Amino acid sequence: MPGPRTLHLNAFLYGVGHHSAAWRHPDSAAERIGDITYFEELARTAERGCLDAVFFADGHSVNPKYTAGTTWFLEPLTALSAMARATERIGLVTTVSASFFTPFHAARMLASLDHISGGRVGANIVTSMFDEEARNHGFDALPPHTERYARAEEFIEVLCALWDSWDDGGVLVDRTGGRFLDSDAIRPIRHRGKHFRVDGPLTVPRCPQGRPVLFQAGASETGRNLAARHAEAVYSVAWDITAALEYATDLRARIAAAGRDPGTVAILPGLVTYVGRSEEEAWAKKTELDALLDVDAAITQLGVFTGQDYTGHDLDAPVDDLPPIEEFTGPQGRYATVQRIIETRRPTLRGLLGYLAAGGGHATMIGTPESVADSIEEWFAAGACDGFNLMCPAYPDSLDDFVDLVVPELQRRGLFRTEYPGSTLRDSLGLKTV
Amino acid sequence: MPGPRTLHLNAFLYGVGHHSAAWRHPDSAAERIGDITYFEELARTAERGCLDAVFFADGHSVNPKYTAGTTWFLEPLTALSAMARATERIGLVTTVSASFFTPFHAARMLASLDHISGGRVGANIVTSMFDEEARNHGFDALPPHTERYARAEEFIEVLCALWDSWDDGGVLVDRTGGRFLDSDAIRPIRHRGKHFRVDGPLTVPRCPQGRPVLFQAGASETGRNLAARHAEAVYSVAWDITAALEYATDLRARIAAAGRDPGTVAILPGLVTYVGRSEEEAWAKKTELDALLDVDAAITQLGVFTGQDYTGHDLDAPVDDLPPIEEFTGPQGRYATVQRIIETRRPTLRGLLGYLAAGGGHATMIGTPESVADSIEEWFAAGACDGFNLMCPAYPDSLDDFVDLVVPELQRRGLFRTEYPGSTLRDSLGLKTV
Ligand SMILES: Cc1cc2nc3c(=O)[nH]c(=O)nc-3n(C[C@H](O)[C@H](O)[C@H](O)COP(=O)(O)O)c2cc1C
Ligand SMILES: Cc1cc2nc3c(=O)[nH]c(=O)nc-3n(C[C@H](O)[C@H](O)[C@H](O)COP(=O)(O)O)c2cc1C
Repeated sequence: MPGPRTLHLNAFLYGVGHHSAAWRHPDSAAERIGDITYFEELARTAERGCLDAVFFADGHSVNPKYTAGTTWFLEPLTALSAMARATERIGLVTTVSASFFTPFHAARMLASLDHISGGRVGANIVTSMFDEEARNHGFDALPPHTERYARAEEFIEVLCALWDSWDDGGVLVDRTGGRFLDSDAIRPIRHRGKHFRVDGPLTVPRCPQGRPVLFQAGASETGRNLAARHAEAVYSVAWDITAALEYATDLRARIAAAGRDPGTVAILPGLVTYVGRSEEEAWAKKTELDALLDVDAAITQLGVFTGQDYTGHDLDAPVDDLPPIEEFTGPQGRYATVQRIIETRRPTLRGLLGYLAAGGGHATMIGTPESVADSIEEWFAAGACDGFNLMCPAYPDSLDDFVDLVVPELQRRGLFRTEYPGSTLRDSLGLKTV
Repeated sequence: MPGPRTLHLNAFLYGVGHHSAAWRHPDSAAERIGDITYFEELARTAERGCLDAVFFADGHSVNPKYTAGTTWFLEPLTALSAMARATERIGLVTTVSASFFTPFHAARMLASLDHISGGRVGANIVTSMFDEEARNHGFDALPPHTERYARAEEFIEVLCALWDSWDDGGVLVDRTGGRFLDSDAIRPIRHRGKHFRVDGPLTVPRCPQGRPVLFQAGASETGRNLAARHAEAVYSVAWDITAALEYATDLRARIAAAGRDPGTVAILPGLVTYVGRSEEEAWAKKTELDALLDVDAAITQLGVFTGQDYTGHDLDAPVDDLPPIEEFTGPQGRYATVQRIIETRRPTLRGLLGYLAAGGGHATMIGTPESVADSIEEWFAAGACDGFNLMCPAYPDSLDDFVDLVVPELQRRGLFRTEYPGSTLRDSLGLKTV
């Protein structure tokens, strides 16, 4: 019996925060981004706030020439396994590249982690983005976009078949009869596809959630169609409620067209928050981080994004509207984002650079617990989303702020849980155990 | 300055023990072989005994028709990551198949685990054994033995190059200068080999041990040569001191021929122990496990190994010597093992089945703490090994027995440490940080 709709909130962990200059703050935990206890603490904070899950993005390359910002460090599956033991209820979502893992490795590690965590695992299936990543795994370059997505689709089918290759109760432990396993409950899968050949069964008995929860994060048509067919939760990008509604409406139509119930897929746009006990305090937090930006580099980058030259522009003066997008010949998506930020927020130049430095196109809410909760409630009530993927600009502080200031306000309004409804991520997301 | 030579002892964890019938014991932890807390407890027991490391073997297939014994369950990298957080000093060694992992995945996860554990990781590089495993990773069958080993050799070279792609101090965290990384300390590896193409650098900064410790466990000529060139510790098989000496002498010659110092490679044969406060108590432990064997199946298998028909043979009567090996046409290795067990131990039929059911050819010592320590000392003093890979017949009991009864005796004799010499596995093994 479904109760009233509840928000879903994930904490998207990334180094010391999603603001690219956050690490330069004197108090930042930049020295600790390889320290597992730092991530355990973040997970415990998120769990204190009853968040659905913590989430790691992932990439398979670093650029040794890019030294100005933080980079990958711990590998997510190993990190989440340790974090599983430091927490009890919070979900643990990792990103898995269908382009680089064999489905057997991925299915196995995710199932193992689901056992270790007592049923709290989700997997964000992506197709990866850079040729540099492909060159670390034996390819000369990434396969074309459609081919990567075709592989990802088959990848997901194999994952599910492997997770289903053991029934519940496959481990009998019948001491007297001398049967440890029940052979009727374990089946090969004999998958023969275009991209994979996998006999199965999995080496891991059926996991607590049956199958770990499948997330998806691709924005393209192909990505949305994959999500429509397979995802149980989706990470999306939307600067404002209009864009979010547009995306949600589109995705829900695709989900329905794929024969599934759109009510069973949580749509979670990224959300950057600066929260203070007053509006001033909230803005001061943004200003303080923006002040740490390497302004020259950011202005050069903004020039590439917009075709405008901002050198010499007063950092504290508002930025003018951009020319109509038709006049711009570079990538349209990024141009439209900058255009929208300028039109909706009327930022100073430094403020604009700051929006781009944290989230860069993801929703950004700045204010008191009440005003941020108002915005969250507005998006949620409008059906623009089912919750958010929190992209805290500076960990751990912005997460503490969200958990200690915003969560209680959301709870007061009956929008968010005050305790976990069960022990698994599926329980938190209101999904059936498959 | 090297002190006196010290024994090295690893606990080879495997389900509820290396005796194939151990799970049928009424007190066995068979229900817990998917429970991470069970493995955490074992690791803490091993750490209480100051053992060098816990070790997981690994395989990539299960046979759904083989239901009479325990099987794989948790995946080792995820399991060890959790166990790292439940322990402080003990090494964590996993088996990694060079046939199925890309070297980038393996190097990355092992480095991540080395950070998470504070420098306690070792990797036993194997080439895998079954076509069923290959068929879970996209192959029709395992590549031929020599090809697998050629791949493993290149695999190790790529692992090392990736681990070396970051110097110490690559993570600068220079807030004022705005440099998070030191670009001079991070290099691509641009590996172009016969089996792998990997650009690098790794996504993980240099790990606490520099490189995780490399173990090897292959017994063939090719396997030994690989060990001679790359291994820092070796898992071997020897029924008695003669066989162990033969192997150690051969391997040390190969290590010297490869231009390395044989004193820097720890040779660790498998060792099954049944320990009691009296000889009777020790033997009773073996007898109790042997009594749980499925005798019909074991006799059938022994028939295949030896070409003899033991049906109807009195289970409690001694087994006669086998005919000369020249008269046997099946696999010679297993025949020789059975022959040796009969000649050296004069077991009853049930006792023989029990030796084969636990370790099956690995050294087996049965007795009081003193007599087991005598045997260990004898092997060690003779240079037949540098320690042992403990294959406890029944976890947790046999490990408790070893740690509580044998370890103190070894410590009393000055053969084994009473505390960890440092914080890393390299410290315990007396290896330099590379
Ligand atoms: C919130 C979010 C997180 C993402 N995380 C990753 C990631 O960690 N790794 C990755 O390779 N791609 C990530 N992506 C990108 C896509 O999932 C996908 O791999 C790639 O961009 C191609 O998809 P598309 O063309 O459909 O957008 C993410 C996207 C979003 C919106
Ligand atoms: C103690 C020990 C443990 C081993 N563990 C594994 C293992 O976990 N997985 C595996 O595939 N092979 C394992 N092996 C076998 C070999 O390492 C190797 O993969 C295979 O047998 C081929 O090597 P060989 O022909 O040189 O013996 C182990 C061997 C020994 C002695």
